[in-house]
Amino acid sequence: MQLLMDRILKDGKVIGNDILKVDSFLNHQLDIELFNEMGKEFKRLYKDSEITKILTIEASGIAIASIAAQYFNVPVVFAKKYSGTNMDKDNYEAEVYSFTKNTTYNIKVSKQYINSSDKILLIDDFLANGRALLGLSSIVKQAGAEIVGAGIVIEKAFQGGREIVEKEGIRVEALASIEKMELGKVIFKEY
Amino acid sequence: MQLLMDRILKDGKVIGNDILKVDSFLNHQLDIELFNEMGKEFKRLYKDSEITKILTIEASGIAIASIAAQYFNVPVVFAKKYSGTNMDKDNYEAEVYSFTKNTTYNIKVSKQYINSSDKILLIDDFLANGRALLGLSSIVKQAGAEIVGAGIVIEKAFQGGREIVEKEGIRVEALASIEKMELGKVIFKEY
Repeated sequence: MQLLMDRILKDGKVIGNDILKVDSFLNHQLDIELFNEMGKEFKRLYKDSEITKILTIEASGIAIASIAAQYFNVPVVFAKKYSGTNMDKDNYEAEVYSFTKNTTYNIKVSKQYINSSDKILLIDDFLANGRALLGLSSIVKQAGAEIVGAGIVIEKAFQGGREIVEKEGIRVEALASIEKMELGKVIFKEY
Repeated sequence: MQLLMDRILKDGKVIGNDILKVDSFLNHQLDIELFNEMGKEFKRLYKDSEITKILTIEASGIAIASIAAQYFNVPVVFAKKYSGTNMDKDNYEAEVYSFTKNTTYNIKVSKQYINSSDKILLIDDFLANGRALLGLSSIVKQAGAEIVGAGIVIEKAFQGGREIVEKEGIRVEALASIEKMELGKVIFKEY
């Protein structure tokens, strides 16, 4: 998606060879106009698929999923990393290791909000090593629901997540795919 | 907002005298169509105010703020409760005690994303004791920006948050205001 790639080149900050900071528009300050264009693109990519629900993970996925949901006319469910006292006790759960936070989360989705007739689109901001998508996929499988595919904003293709996720039989669509980062520059994959 | 009050009566679950669970449409599964109606209502309430940015707090505020932002044509910034290794080091910070999670969070907003010319609308899902709004307000003041007001989905009026927040000079608009909860029932304030 050209608009997104241009924005990454303009406002993304590369740190070392593997961190891309996009705080200014994607995951701290949120450019909702851009999110709408991303939502339309996810809809275009999945226009032939029946989707009943979007599943994402807190926190950065929530806004992207919510804006995109308007183009699919479906509700969003977000997996919780941190459950309060109000959370249901009857949940689907999966472990997800986060490299950026150096923590393993036990993510949870109430059993009430995914059922075996659901056709689920997974949405997240980044695909790096694929751990978050695998965790969400595990939850969908526990519910006996179908995974239609994943919609990712930025794929760091050099971290191998796509291969791991595709091996699970999951279709992966990324709006921008980064081949490598070096000397402070982002180099996108050519198609 | 009648549509919201009807939905709370239909799908909200009262636990004891102070917990209202609205997981099925507001803060775990998200009814994005309803969120659009809420966004329109926030715009109607603040139609005469110039607003440059919406500030909310992760995780439940993010979707509400993002959908509402479409009616104001402004970006969203969300205060982070949990900062990863990628987070800026130069932040506005405030302490917020959460009763539902029995934890004090040190919420953070990068200094890059609020500045002294901003006119800020605060958005959150619940107003109970007011701690989250006070934390957000502290961050806006540290930035030297203006708080136009707060837009809250559900106010638990019996927990005193509005008084505390209004004493700070902040306008508070709630889409549904609960006077009390007893015997499993929600009783709304009459206007």
